[in-house]
Amino acid sequence: MAILQTTPDSLSNLAQQTQKAAQQLADLSTQQRNQALEAIAQALANHKDEIAAANATDCEQAKADGIPEALQARLKLSETKLQSAIAGIKDVAGLSDPIGAIQIHRELDTGLVLKRLTCPLGVLGVIFEARPDALIQITSLAIKSGNGVILKGGKEALNSCQTLTKVIHEALAETDVPPEAVQLLTTRAETQELLSLDESVDLIIPRGSNSFVRFIQENTNIPVLGHADGICHVYVDEGADLEKAVAIAIDSKTQYPAACNAMETLLVHSAIAEQFLPQLEKAMAGKGVTLRGDEVARRILPQIAQATEADWETEYGGLVLAVKIVDSLESAIAHIHTYGSRHTEAIITENASLAQTFLNQVDAAGVFHNCSTRFSDGFRYGFGAEVGISTQKMPPRGPVGLEGLVTYKYQLTGDGHIAETYSGDNAKSFTHKDL
Amino acid sequence: MAILQTTPDSLSNLAQQTQKAAQQLADLSTQQRNQALEAIAQALANHKDEIAAANATDCEQAKADGIPEALQARLKLSETKLQSAIAGIKDVAGLSDPIGAIQIHRELDTGLVLKRLTCPLGVLGVIFEARPDALIQITSLAIKSGNGVILKGGKEALNSCQTLTKVIHEALAETDVPPEAVQLLTTRAETQELLSLDESVDLIIPRGSNSFVRFIQENTNIPVLGHADGICHVYVDEGADLEKAVAIAIDSKTQYPAACNAMETLLVHSAIAEQFLPQLEKAMAGKGVTLRGDEVARRILPQIAQATEADWETEYGGLVLAVKIVDSLESAIAHIHTYGSRHTEAIITENASLAQTFLNQVDAAGVFHNCSTRFSDGFRYGFGAEVGISTQKMPPRGPVGLEGLVTYKYQLTGDGHIAETYSGDNAKSFTHKDL
Repeated sequence: MAILQTTPDSLSNLAQQTQKAAQQLADLSTQQRNQALEAIAQALANHKDEIAAANATDCEQAKADGIPEALQARLKLSETKLQSAIAGIKDVAGLSDPIGAIQIHRELDTGLVLKRLTCPLGVLGVIFEARPDALIQITSLAIKSGNGVILKGGKEALNSCQTLTKVIHEALAETDVPPEAVQLLTTRAETQELLSLDESVDLIIPRGSNSFVRFIQENTNIPVLGHADGICHVYVDEGADLEKAVAIAIDSKTQYPAACNAMETLLVHSAIAEQFLPQLEKAMAGKGVTLRGDEVARRILPQIAQATEADWETEYGGLVLAVKIVDSLESAIAHIHTYGSRHTEAIITENASLAQTFLNQVDAAGVFHNCSTRFSDGFRYGFGAEVGISTQKMPPRGPVGLEGLVTYKYQLTGDGHIAETYSGDNAKSFTHKDL
Repeated sequence: MAILQTTPDSLSNLAQQTQKAAQQLADLSTQQRNQALEAIAQALANHKDEIAAANATDCEQAKADGIPEALQARLKLSETKLQSAIAGIKDVAGLSDPIGAIQIHRELDTGLVLKRLTCPLGVLGVIFEARPDALIQITSLAIKSGNGVILKGGKEALNSCQTLTKVIHEALAETDVPPEAVQLLTTRAETQELLSLDESVDLIIPRGSNSFVRFIQENTNIPVLGHADGICHVYVDEGADLEKAVAIAIDSKTQYPAACNAMETLLVHSAIAEQFLPQLEKAMAGKGVTLRGDEVARRILPQIAQATEADWETEYGGLVLAVKIVDSLESAIAHIHTYGSRHTEAIITENASLAQTFLNQVDAAGVFHNCSTRFSDGFRYGFGAEVGISTQKMPPRGPVGLEGLVTYKYQLTGDGHIAETYSGDNAKSFTHKDL
């Protein structure tokens, strides 16, 4: 099967094709979807040489174009990475089915039964960068959750993505999943067009830099799963165990500084600042972290640079930490609400009552007590797969597993039941009995 | 307490005040929120004469302005309506608490416990029309769900809304709920401004005409709970029991034709059209319903008017029904996906397998088998309260009760736990044990 070459003019048709295929996919059993995943895994293993060759072409071109080495590394689909991606497909097949779960099962009256069932969203639009293995992972999550998917990879990975999609299409042709459920876009113009297809695309998942995600969020009416900024705080309360506080601060800042769940600003209660800051400074220096402090912090640690307003709004993504002294839990929460990105916020204290106030009042996807912000992650939460982390208010929120790719519908089955029976003077009562 | 008079310049401040009050509200117990509801109910009863006087002023002005009688009727807050609204507050107090529900409770490792808990959204923006009793209902739902609320009623109801808000503020001042959690806007300019406050308003709930809801949806980045169109279909399959089909079609069309869950187009399988249409026509004529048919339908019922493309896209909201003949379930589904508004879609058939395909493949908030579309309603589903009906894909979808006013957050509590323990060569394993 040839890969469809699209122009913006034909993209709307392609999305409708995907939508129609997704509709068939929604009607397949767990077993039929899992069989398709097994077939893809097998086909990728069988075509590993062809895939390696296509990837080599991309890597040579990237080198010739002088693309940054970090990007070249992500582009490279080594045999180990491919085997790991294939193992990932089998893991996804083994996850419990996110669709068809009964959330409400209620008799409204004899013979009139309501079910609220999880069901696929429809069509996902996924825009990712250089990593060709992302295509494999996303496709398997889409099929598992009964969704069609329109993929757009980075242009550096064009040959790799085209070959992977061809192999996936060939594999699906032998299964009950229509190959049209998985589509690949190849040009930047198509990305723009994709964002306008709110009639046929139900969710956009961007994987890339903060500015890229923000661009997507600001340029589409389609719901976007993801987050732009990750400005997380740790608040060290006056009731903190300072040893724990140092260890948690170090882990939150340095365990993986580029991650969205790393700490950017540390808030410290004034009552323990004099005792705590020198310990903190020593430990952070040992990890190569540069501190920037507000005026009060700099009275205790005069050697550190002054933090300005801009620091409170910055996601450093590296070994820099802003430090602010606050006089109360209330001030800490106010700072978090002004500058935080509603991602993950932690309090360190042995005072259970204050901790509970923090957990109740702080508005963020993750509110943590006496542990590192770095735990905010779908795998660590035990979700098996992570589709993204959402900082929006409405669910799905926080780390999102497969359940972020499904919605629900109400199924009502009767036997000729009409609403008139239940209205007016002689209205029959509903039984509303949960089954 | 005086009602805050706002101008667009001060609205952002007012929204921040509401947000701060909502943050305190989020920290209150079920009992504290229910006590506030009881206090409001009592205060409204105590001030019924003052409320009646304010409402009389509005009603006289509306009459003098020659406002349509239907609108005048909705504006009138009779003692019966007020008593019913007060009873409604007590009903809301009696509903189970939508916040603090534990959705996930999982040990990640010894002493490191994850909970996913429902929590308030924050601040609701509710824009409604003439009915002053809507203000009472919405305020009670907001307080029950721990949310602040910014209300904007129709200008005809200005005196009524101001007096109701004053009484509510006075009542709340004697409770643990900060009065600032409930705010009233009074000018149209403020509505526009409200739609731009995506930093402090978390959900917009518009109550009004289709075009009004569409305007709101197109002019805000804040999530909107509601629906513009309600174009619902009933598909009478060749395997239908025709007697049931007539009864369900009559109910779906005529039980309350102005409702969003009323049927607008009837799809009929060609194999039974000749037998079914004359029965349908007779029953519909008896209810005063005018039919419009496609060409095939008009071969059987030549007396009815021709349906055009525009009919398939029209929510009549009255006693008109479009009829289309289709050759298959697939054609029926295709028509529904092209013209439906994803609200409620029904199939009438005795063929269980075809019915299941319809329920699986049709993408709508409600998919019904052998019952009237009119059942698509929060009270009929047994939700106790209905906040709105959503036709969006992402949850909350369909009729939405109190759960539509809450989101969730992840609370993780540890005792000094850091992520580094669980990574690298000697990584400790997570236990991931549901509690």
